[in-house]
Amino acid sequence: MSKYTELKREVYEANMELQNRGLVIYTFGNVSQIDRAAGVVAIKPSGVSYDAMKPEDIVVVDLENNIVEGTMRPSSDTKTHTHLYRHFADIGGVTHTHSTYATAWAQAKQSIPCLGTTHADYVHGDIVCTRVLTDEQVQGDYEEETGIQITEAYQNRDPKAAPMVIVAGHAPFTWGKDGAESVYHAALLEEIARMAYLTRTLDPKAEPLKQAILDKHYLRKHGKDAYYGQSK
Amino acid sequence: MSKYTELKREVYEANMELQNRGLVIYTFGNVSQIDRAAGVVAIKPSGVSYDAMKPEDIVVVDLENNIVEGTMRPSSDTKTHTHLYRHFADIGGVTHTHSTYATAWAQAKQSIPCLGTTHADYVHGDIVCTRVLTDEQVQGDYEEETGIQITEAYQNRDPKAAPMVIVAGHAPFTWGKDGAESVYHAALLEEIARMAYLTRTLDPKAEPLKQAILDKHYLRKHGKDAYYGQSK
Amino acid sequence: MSKYTELKREVYEANMELQNRGLVIYTFGNVSQIDRAAGVVAIKPSGVSYDAMKPEDIVVVDLENNIVEGTMRPSSDTKTHTHLYRHFADIGGVTHTHSTYATAWAQAKQSIPCLGTTHADYVHGDIVCTRVLTDEQVQGDYEEETGIQITEAYQNRDPKAAPMVIVAGHAPFTWGKDGAESVYHAALLEEIARMAYLTRTLDPKAEPLKQAILDKHYLRKHGKDAYYGQSK
Amino acid sequence: MSKYTELKREVYEANMELQNRGLVIYTFGNVSQIDRAAGVVAIKPSGVSYDAMKPEDIVVVDLENNIVEGTMRPSSDTKTHTHLYRHFADIGGVTHTHSTYATAWAQAKQSIPCLGTTHADYVHGDIVCTRVLTDEQVQGDYEEETGIQITEAYQNRDPKAAPMVIVAGHAPFTWGKDGAESVYHAALLEEIARMAYLTRTLDPKAEPLKQAILDKHYLRKHGKDAYYGQSK
Repeated sequence: MSKYTELKREVYEANMELQNRGLVIYTFGNVSQIDRAAGVVAIKPSGVSYDAMKPEDIVVVDLENNIVEGTMRPSSDTKTHTHLYRHFADIGGVTHTHSTYATAWAQAKQSIPCLGTTHADYVHGDIVCTRVLTDEQVQGDYEEETGIQITEAYQNRDPKAAPMVIVAGHAPFTWGKDGAESVYHAALLEEIARMAYLTRTLDPKAEPLKQAILDKHYLRKHGKDAYYGQSK
Repeated sequence: MSKYTELKREVYEANMELQNRGLVIYTFGNVSQIDRAAGVVAIKPSGVSYDAMKPEDIVVVDLENNIVEGTMRPSSDTKTHTHLYRHFADIGGVTHTHSTYATAWAQAKQSIPCLGTTHADYVHGDIVCTRVLTDEQVQGDYEEETGIQITEAYQNRDPKAAPMVIVAGHAPFTWGKDGAESVYHAALLEEIARMAYLTRTLDPKAEPLKQAILDKHYLRKHGKDAYYGQSK
Repeated sequence: MSKYTELKREVYEANMELQNRGLVIYTFGNVSQIDRAAGVVAIKPSGVSYDAMKPEDIVVVDLENNIVEGTMRPSSDTKTHTHLYRHFADIGGVTHTHSTYATAWAQAKQSIPCLGTTHADYVHGDIVCTRVLTDEQVQGDYEEETGIQITEAYQNRDPKAAPMVIVAGHAPFTWGKDGAESVYHAALLEEIARMAYLTRTLDPKAEPLKQAILDKHYLRKHGKDAYYGQSK
Repeated sequence: MSKYTELKREVYEANMELQNRGLVIYTFGNVSQIDRAAGVVAIKPSGVSYDAMKPEDIVVVDLENNIVEGTMRPSSDTKTHTHLYRHFADIGGVTHTHSTYATAWAQAKQSIPCLGTTHADYVHGDIVCTRVLTDEQVQGDYEEETGIQITEAYQNRDPKAAPMVIVAGHAPFTWGKDGAESVYHAALLEEIARMAYLTRTLDPKAEPLKQAILDKHYLRKHGKDAYYGQSK
């Protein structure tokens, strides 16, 4: 019995939730979760379909991407995940999908403006689209560079106030306190991206929310005086 | 055994119908129903997922938003619901969703014009989008102000002839004779909003229905000489 | 035991197929089928939901809309159905839906051009949108006038070569050799309407198919030398 | 017991997967698979619905379209399939669908540009739209000419680097090492087509990916140094 059995089971279930929510097809997407005390990350194996995957297939790596436990190759996006864990000290889980509407925004290389309170409830400001990589970065350590694309976009931004980002020409990454919450944010992003798509195609000049409403909605859920939900 | 058991069960079922109809994800949305004789409103608890919710979790409040029965916090939108019950004397249920197409119209801050008979069968005229709140209103009693946004839009309008409204930058509210009918109106609104979106993106200059057809369709279902359906 | 038991069962099943195919919600839509020998039409009752409907609820009327058998009111669209049976001698079933994409074209008051072979396989030419009714027609015998709208659009057109039409500002009607085939045409229309919507929003100037391909596809399925399928 | 029993079973299952993935309705679409050693192709029978079809209904033909085994007519598109097998020496399966978004691009007569890495992961460059047939070609051996349309578009293109094509005014064809992989490519094409539609309607000027990223994504999955997935 591995000491990572519980971690791997949680990561397995978070990955399966991706498929249950309709956020992935075939082998698309991957979820990871970190055990900060042990310094390890559990992540989906590369190219395995959700229907075939078992909890014991989850791969455990350290923060330098060395395999600690597992017989399969980890996701080809592993270096992006570990980069995020090394730079965002408070996050516990990361999700990558190619969900349809969020990916359309990525392909249009546009940040998603905050057009309504659905967005403001979860993200304080735009959902940022990263810059495009240079040819040198693509030809270099590509998956690490994708992580760098993301963390550079957060130099003046709190990862917890915007737990989702769009990588230009590629697709979204989201994060949370654990793998499950990062999947929840991936599902919310897809819905926000879809609403924003519909709004902008209905009216290309639709304006973002005023700052006051944006603050109000975000803070009633996430501020120190939050009053949404059952916990304090 | 509470004297509100039956009311809470009906409100529970109306809330579950929101999820069954695909109008909400996660904890989005809420339905309430009033017992006018008792002066109480039963409403979904705040931030509880539909899969986890039980009938006994439904919260009962009075029209001034005081908890009468229940161990959980009521929906953070409760003040909007009670405002509507106080101002619209004939309604028995209220639904709030962030359903996708209706929310896109809210984010575009546009009323939905009556483009066809599907709309005319249920709403006599536009589905109105409210004005935008001032910063002072947002920073004040926000959920009460949302109710005020709605009732101000109905100063010259019969709530029964248009049982659905779009709150600018936010999302729809609908109502009916009870919670179940308010959910029915939420589902119809989403379908009407989707058809109107498709029509306007196919032809941005698509014209509303002529008044004669609008009157005919609304009145064959709702006028004193209505001949649709089985009841008189 | 009624002599219309089998007719009513077939009409019941054709109506249920509307819901199974996702072409209707709640009480939307209706299917009828004629027994030409008996001179009667069986049709969905008005305003009854699909989940509640039973085969014995189907109403039998004659071609002048008098109830021959049944305890419920027939569909409020009955006069449109009987008008079509009186004027299109070869049809055996009629379906009316408010399916989403076909209704969007109706609301845009545009005929659906033949943009591809999916369309050409079933309809020889445009799927015509009728003219708009005059106020006098709306205020007169409205449902009969809707039938007149349709048959006037077919004065120089074979109903079998185009078993689907769009009523301006309203929604589609389709027909076939029986109720089941009219539902099949309703489902095909919705898919054709969706493809045409996507094509025109991708490229507003997209051109119709050339006549040669249009003829080829229609005739390989429907001409005297048809070679698609197993019969013939 | 036929010597083609296993081939027919695989083709049956690949055809059923088309329906399971939502890529076809009714009798739309068809999948074939070749046994190169035996010189035969197994293919769906013409005009049979997926729910009614049985493994023994699959028809076996030779590469000149003569029936080798089977009691039903083969798909009316058989000549297109055999044309592809004769000209693309390395393919083992072919799929034809009228999936909605891919067909919209075909109707717009536009190639799908490579707008993101989802596309680049599977196709190296545009997903090409063929030229339009001349009237003479349509009136001649139409299904053979459709195959010629496709192979002409691949004169300077490797079929394995772009296992999917769009036939102008018609719909897509895809291929793979066997019938199952050709269905996989049909499903990927539909998702890529949908993302590209959303991107272009969000921003009609959205630019294709840079060549460096296009190469990187395709080659990390398909090049000699591929590192995606579990096999070498």
